[in-house]
Amino acid sequence: MVKRRRATGGPNAAAPGPRPVRARRDDRRRPAGDVRDLGVSQAAVDALVALLDLEKIEVDIFRGVSPPAERQRVFGGQVAGQALVAAARTVEPDSLVHSLHAYFLRPGDTRIPILYMVDRIRDGLSFVTRRVTAVQHGRAIFSLSASFQVPEEGFDHADPMPEVPDPETLPTVSEAWGEMAAERGDHRFEIDLPFDLRNCDWGPSQRSTPLPPYQRIWLKATGELPDDPVLHACALTYASDMTLLDTALLPHGLGPIDDVFMASLDHAMWFHRPFRADEWLLYAQHTPSASGGRGFAQGEVYTREGHLAVTVVQEGLVRPPR
Amino acid sequence: MVKRRRATGGPNAAAPGPRPVRARRDDRRRPAGDVRDLGVSQAAVDALVALLDLEKIEVDIFRGVSPPAERQRVFGGQVAGQALVAAARTVEPDSLVHSLHAYFLRPGDTRIPILYMVDRIRDGLSFVTRRVTAVQHGRAIFSLSASFQVPEEGFDHADPMPEVPDPETLPTVSEAWGEMAAERGDHRFEIDLPFDLRNCDWGPSQRSTPLPPYQRIWLKATGELPDDPVLHACALTYASDMTLLDTALLPHGLGPIDDVFMASLDHAMWFHRPFRADEWLLYAQHTPSASGGRGFAQGEVYTREGHLAVTVVQEGLVRPPR
Repeated sequence: MVKRRRATGGPNAAAPGPRPVRARRDDRRRPAGDVRDLGVSQAAVDALVALLDLEKIEVDIFRGVSPPAERQRVFGGQVAGQALVAAARTVEPDSLVHSLHAYFLRPGDTRIPILYMVDRIRDGLSFVTRRVTAVQHGRAIFSLSASFQVPEEGFDHADPMPEVPDPETLPTVSEAWGEMAAERGDHRFEIDLPFDLRNCDWGPSQRSTPLPPYQRIWLKATGELPDDPVLHACALTYASDMTLLDTALLPHGLGPIDDVFMASLDHAMWFHRPFRADEWLLYAQHTPSASGGRGFAQGEVYTREGHLAVTVVQEGLVRPPR
Repeated sequence: MVKRRRATGGPNAAAPGPRPVRARRDDRRRPAGDVRDLGVSQAAVDALVALLDLEKIEVDIFRGVSPPAERQRVFGGQVAGQALVAAARTVEPDSLVHSLHAYFLRPGDTRIPILYMVDRIRDGLSFVTRRVTAVQHGRAIFSLSASFQVPEEGFDHADPMPEVPDPETLPTVSEAWGEMAAERGDHRFEIDLPFDLRNCDWGPSQRSTPLPPYQRIWLKATGELPDDPVLHACALTYASDMTLLDTALLPHGLGPIDDVFMASLDHAMWFHRPFRADEWLLYAQHTPSASGGRGFAQGEVYTREGHLAVTVVQEGLVRPPR
């Protein structure tokens, strides 16, 4: 448990910004003073922190659980985030993760725990590398490699952040999509998400026609996270899998609630600079290619101050509606 | 051995292009009719093909060698290419590689063979995944994961190729850098390379001042490769490690023959569309970031017809001159 950052008001009550803050969908629905107004967002983040707090079974063996079965298959960002936690638990805290590469191998079963087995493949002076295999029902469901480095100085340059509207001026993903999804029997936007996601470019009214191959999304945890930088990396690993593959649908006139089969195939991240996952981050996503049943997308994550913090690259299976 | 494609003339004798073909440095140096004019380039490619032809030691265990010790450390592209060969040897030929993710763990020793041990982590209906560990002196020097797919149809889109000069109008890397490097006692451009590399943007006279963070390089094998698509993927894996990390130096006024310590840390590739590594490919490279002693670069590989064939992403250790 972490302390609540705000004692009163909605999550955006004190947010700065050039335009008036739009009321959140759930604020509008609930009676003023409903206790859920204060606790729900932080509760989703606390649940994420709990999800990322693995149980140690033996040296280099950890066990994680999935949230009460909201989904049939384990969310990819969860297993990636948990695997990175397992790797980090076997590394001295003075080394920080600077990259990870992972493959999703089989659907995860939400009903049973996931075992994370860590292989200490390199213990160098400057760099430490770990391979993690996530196992269920006797088979590997996921494989991750991650590299950690003792911080050092060197050359510095970075691409600039694109210009986009401030997050306070934009609707949340639930505001944008919730109603239309619910009409189709898709209730995923009614669950309290641990991340607030706000699309700078496209809303539901645009997604049924072909669009340019990019979308920029502001995101941040809906409550406060503890200060540990590993936890922020793991939380962003979780979040980075939420919207990236959807980007590959943009040129094809389809959106997140259409009947498209999508499954992450791999996931790679490079951590360039410090960031906090509970402060606004701009996730600038772009799909350079789709081919052979696979969508390919990459994203750059910038801090609100415009520093390039992380690069994410992912390929996923994208099967058109039949 | 593969047959020679051209019986007479230099490698560019019949090449089309809007401007006159520049004489190759080695053509100018050698007397006309010197047998090396015909054989040398194909010989370097044949040597590459031989390098990629691993010896099978046991089921899922292969052995590769390094070329006669031109270098103290094994070239990263070689071990990545050989590891991909090892993975592909354990996969049915109807599945094609669509991505790989690798970490360089320890310097390879050119004096002894490298053992490649393959782990069949997933054998699915559509997708097959392999993990390969490269071992020398009892320790992992390199770890690769690769995914293979039975070809299927689906959505198709791709970023367009940037406009650049035709390769026939550009100097080779040996022409551009050989003399200046030799003056500094660096003879690496005098070795017959299996790839012809031609930079569209920058030459030696520009590399001592800060430049924009990109370089586009035409590349192709200097001789013919057999038709096997796996071999073309492995050959491009080799080539893709030759120039990418150098891109990270562009904003810092340093170039490939300056005294900078550079070592690849990881390497990821996504194979979007078919290509031949013995036909011109445009390798459009860009460095989005450098930080913490690490340079980060990515490249898109286009066929000469403008089709996006491959994406490459790499991070490397880049330590400034002391």
